[in-house]
Amino acid sequence: MGVVVPLEKLSDQGLGALAGLVAADMGRVNAMILSRTGSEVAMIPEVASHLISSGGKRLRPMLTLATAQLSAYRGEGHVKLAAAVEFMHTATLLHDDVVDESEMRRGKVAARVKWGNEASVLVGDFLLGQAFKMMVEVGSLRALEILSCAAAVIAEGEVMQLAAAKNTETNEDEYLAVIRAKTAELFGAACEVGPVIASRPKAEAAACRSYGTNLGIAFQLVDDALDYGGTSQKLGKNVGDDFREGKITLPVVLSFRRGDAAERSFWRRTLVDGEVRAGDLEHAVAIMRRHRALDDTIERARHYGAIARDALALFPNGAMKQALLEVVDFCIARGH
Amino acid sequence: MGVVVPLEKLSDQGLGALAGLVAADMGRVNAMILSRTGSEVAMIPEVASHLISSGGKRLRPMLTLATAQLSAYRGEGHVKLAAAVEFMHTATLLHDDVVDESEMRRGKVAARVKWGNEASVLVGDFLLGQAFKMMVEVGSLRALEILSCAAAVIAEGEVMQLAAAKNTETNEDEYLAVIRAKTAELFGAACEVGPVIASRPKAEAAACRSYGTNLGIAFQLVDDALDYGGTSQKLGKNVGDDFREGKITLPVVLSFRRGDAAERSFWRRTLVDGEVRAGDLEHAVAIMRRHRALDDTIERARHYGAIARDALALFPNGAMKQALLEVVDFCIARGH
Repeated sequence: MGVVVPLEKLSDQGLGALAGLVAADMGRVNAMILSRTGSEVAMIPEVASHLISSGGKRLRPMLTLATAQLSAYRGEGHVKLAAAVEFMHTATLLHDDVVDESEMRRGKVAARVKWGNEASVLVGDFLLGQAFKMMVEVGSLRALEILSCAAAVIAEGEVMQLAAAKNTETNEDEYLAVIRAKTAELFGAACEVGPVIASRPKAEAAACRSYGTNLGIAFQLVDDALDYGGTSQKLGKNVGDDFREGKITLPVVLSFRRGDAAERSFWRRTLVDGEVRAGDLEHAVAIMRRHRALDDTIERARHYGAIARDALALFPNGAMKQALLEVVDFCIARGH
Repeated sequence: MGVVVPLEKLSDQGLGALAGLVAADMGRVNAMILSRTGSEVAMIPEVASHLISSGGKRLRPMLTLATAQLSAYRGEGHVKLAAAVEFMHTATLLHDDVVDESEMRRGKVAARVKWGNEASVLVGDFLLGQAFKMMVEVGSLRALEILSCAAAVIAEGEVMQLAAAKNTETNEDEYLAVIRAKTAELFGAACEVGPVIASRPKAEAAACRSYGTNLGIAFQLVDDALDYGGTSQKLGKNVGDDFREGKITLPVVLSFRRGDAAERSFWRRTLVDGEVRAGDLEHAVAIMRRHRALDDTIERARHYGAIARDALALFPNGAMKQALLEVVDFCIARGH
């Protein structure tokens, strides 16, 4: 599993090494994002900046910048592609919140609560349109193909999830298919376009895609575990969103299958029927701990993290490769 | 990871529990296989029985019988479907040996060496035809759909492998896509048709498919490691076939990526150019050990084994479920 980094050091540094290496480019991406959310229609910059300015780690555009740099890219295209990747992600969040009827997003009230569902849907579409415009401006047909294919796959994943929603009998393969489409596809595409615009050999583009895809799966699985407090013994803040929204994530899939009849009724009552009472979240976490569902979710994430690491092994050692490997470690370590 | 069974006990018992539970049905499958390889054209039963009588574990048809039994199926269809599954597998082996120009199969000279490539291709086609006839006789449109879809996916996997052959830069995701299609798809289909002909709910059919698919991946990965002696310190018998045939399997994928320039040239010389000298196999194994490629291949297999186990967790405990779980443990334990 490669270099072992002490956990404390990791959580201090977070995405530090990567963020440092792409800082200059990232400044230009942020400027690009700002300029491309401008519109005569006042509501567009309002809604867009509500979500975009509220932070988020901007991991996806960072990955595009990082793999472009790893590929010794000399040009300007990576900045627009990175901005396009962030727009695609933001559009997905806006549309997701409408579908899930979410109240909150990134610690702020969701855009759809403030401006309504219609505005969220349409501003999402506007951002997707802007993303495509930027991709076309870059002029790489292959990058355009990768990102437009990702947009279709993500939408397919949303529909897949809609169809599987509230089904406690969803199995692990089915859940994995959803997060491959909804989360990992954009991570993979964001990473692949770097070597592609640098005209690097196919094997390197495939390696970057594999890194991104598997990192994306690991990232989502750890997120799923963190939503129930991860493997630590105490419940932290921001825990229980998935539970309250009745989302069927891997910790639930594993707990449901491993549980007895009483536990299965509990999951059906809380997640399918949405009858959540005081103490239910704590009970959910207790069931998950009993069945090692959170530990095993992290264990599964570790598997994908290992594949992501090996994907990058093709590249010579260097600061950027090291930073990308640390992102994998950081992502897994978050779960504890 | 569930019940821990001592390794010694496992290797003694092997597929014992499962074989015992399906023994009666398996006798009828063997009779069916014998009767359906009959033909006026004398070469057909000769070629077919050369391969079929030479053994093999018949794990795939056993899985069809087992999941039918797990689903409390009362009928006769499972016998024909199990025979069809074995025919599909045998046809694949016949065609594979032609594509790979193999000399040996199951410790005997390959059919193509004895009767020629043409006969191997055509008898394979004959077996596929017989398999479809049996499926149609069973009369379950859904089972027919599952198995014919598997036949197409397997063929697709063969072509995929042909296109990726001799490419040492194949990455883990690409390799996994090949074995998903070539091996795991038939395992998954063989397991899914059991609950399907028993008209069990969709979630149970999906659980059996997931069990089969993930068992199939684990099985293939362990096979790949065993071809280089597994994780044990000494080289056993029947080691090195994949190496001599220049097959790019996961232990090679990991070693190549993790290796230095000298090691990468070694893999290119031996596997791509086919220049194998005395001592090369031992050197290959030494490189794999240095990079923990065999241990990590088993570690990856363990991940899929864990998913297979959880897939079955949906079913109440019983002798058959226990036997199927033991197959997973046995499969992984073989690697050591």
